[in-house]
Amino acid sequence: MHDTSTTDRTATDQTAAEQTRVEQALVERVLRSFADTEDPRLKDVLESLVRHLHSFIREIRLTEAEWTAAIDFLTACGRITDDRRQEFILLSDVLGASMQTVTVNNELDGDATEATVFGPFFVDDAPSIPFGGDIAGGATGEPCWVEGTVTGTDGAPIPDARIEVWECDEDGLYDVQYGDERTAARARLETRGDGTYGFWGLRPVPYPIPADGPVGRLLAATGRSPLRAAHLHFMVSAPGFRTLVTHIFVEGDEQLVIGDSVFGVKDSLIKRFEAQGAGAPVPTARDLGGGPWSRTRFDIVLSLDPSAH
Amino acid sequence: MHDTSTTDRTATDQTAAEQTRVEQALVERVLRSFADTEDPRLKDVLESLVRHLHSFIREIRLTEAEWTAAIDFLTACGRITDDRRQEFILLSDVLGASMQTVTVNNELDGDATEATVFGPFFVDDAPSIPFGGDIAGGATGEPCWVEGTVTGTDGAPIPDARIEVWECDEDGLYDVQYGDERTAARARLETRGDGTYGFWGLRPVPYPIPADGPVGRLLAATGRSPLRAAHLHFMVSAPGFRTLVTHIFVEGDEQLVIGDSVFGVKDSLIKRFEAQGAGAPVPTARDLGGGPWSRTRFDIVLSLDPSAH
Ligand SMILES: [Fe+2]
Ligand SMILES: [Fe+2]
Repeated sequence: MHDTSTTDRTATDQTAAEQTRVEQALVERVLRSFADTEDPRLKDVLESLVRHLHSFIREIRLTEAEWTAAIDFLTACGRITDDRRQEFILLSDVLGASMQTVTVNNELDGDATEATVFGPFFVDDAPSIPFGGDIAGGATGEPCWVEGTVTGTDGAPIPDARIEVWECDEDGLYDVQYGDERTAARARLETRGDGTYGFWGLRPVPYPIPADGPVGRLLAATGRSPLRAAHLHFMVSAPGFRTLVTHIFVEGDEQLVIGDSVFGVKDSLIKRFEAQGAGAPVPTARDLGGGPWSRTRFDIVLSLDPSAH
Repeated sequence: MHDTSTTDRTATDQTAAEQTRVEQALVERVLRSFADTEDPRLKDVLESLVRHLHSFIREIRLTEAEWTAAIDFLTACGRITDDRRQEFILLSDVLGASMQTVTVNNELDGDATEATVFGPFFVDDAPSIPFGGDIAGGATGEPCWVEGTVTGTDGAPIPDARIEVWECDEDGLYDVQYGDERTAARARLETRGDGTYGFWGLRPVPYPIPADGPVGRLLAATGRSPLRAAHLHFMVSAPGFRTLVTHIFVEGDEQLVIGDSVFGVKDSLIKRFEAQGAGAPVPTARDLGGGPWSRTRFDIVLSLDPSAH
């Protein structure tokens, strides 16, 4: 009995070792197939992709039914994607792949403001407003005064920096989701000579990413919220500096605890949006009709553009 | 100078360590988001996927332009995919992911015949033929006599095993690519009481996978051939045994050296297809009109079905 069981175990060990060898040999064969790739960067990217993709399949022992489910999932993503809906970006977002790409492309640089995801709702031709202007353009929501400075990492103010801001209305909709041609809750402005900026926006609210497709079904199957934590988008650029794409988030927003569906939150980007009492002085002497309003401050620090040196 | 450079280096090291910490923290945050997934297997699969996807992005330092190119590539795959064309399967095939999935799901079992990819050209209702029948059904190509046995790993013959076979014609086309309703170059048959089988097929030729889409452009950019090594598909099933999906390949086919575009080749599946001289006895006394023909032998060994024990 003892001898037989030792023999069996040895045979099993040998089969397992041979199975590992066969799987590894397949990986090597696929890697060799890219040997003649002319573009060295494309070769590196594909080799890394192949290694990690095969490691995933081997580690999890992906079943053939699961492989079929993955093909069907990607096919469904393709079917719902068109000029207005991009399910592959949503998929990248909810897996944190978009945010990880942002993170590796915006390495920490001292006190420079951190970047986050761009999102699908930027529009190139937003209206220009002066210092103190209102971005709402008819979008509804609680008025919010937003102000701050734009400086370099050396602390020197940057005049005439271009700031683009955009956000959703109080119903969680961006203007491009209205289904008409309105432009609302977005604007571009510049810093003044001393590097300061200020505008009237709307207090941000959480909103869901589109959840009626395969990515929404994935979130439902995993018990995840489709909501994004409340935020206000910024894109800030100035000659000689790296363009910054980021948001600010609202301190106390419970979605910060539940979790932002696309993992865009960084602690340094969470700002206090302070509700203002009835007697508080209103910037730009705007007539708010006695209604509620809040204010926040976002001081922006830009990195030097490494490609400009 | 010495002090300053040490300080700089320390600051740089600290920033690099902090960058690594931020990237790792993002991975952990994404993993935690799946904590409430009810299905434990789905949770495991997604966690493994997230780990490997993020490792890929971090290792290769994927640029934002490359991320956009990847989104555009998947979008193009979605656009060309329909009921007759499946670009996501092609993508899985050319990255070796399909073959690796087959490999992990068909672990080596002693002398049992090795599996390979199923491919997109199987049809469920192929015509039945008797021992010695012809699968061509009007498809053109050099006649080839194919014979062998089906046994278990204990060597015992398996009578009445179901064998499905399918292949392309001499122009590299499967019947489903003809664009009409013809059935050709496919059949089902059974082993006889002694476990033997035999049929007339066509000598296999290499054929390209569909290369007019994004996957074809990927192959072109990486200098890879879209051709599959010449092969004849088999699916063999019998009660109590694991269903075997495999091909046989043609010894001497130069595509075996260039590389099969979907990595389906295993050495044990390469068979000698012997050209027959004018005087060679023709099985089933078929009248070949004096034309060229060949013959091959494929002895099939089935594993026991593990789920049946
Ligand atoms: Fe947003
Ligand atoms: Fe095939």
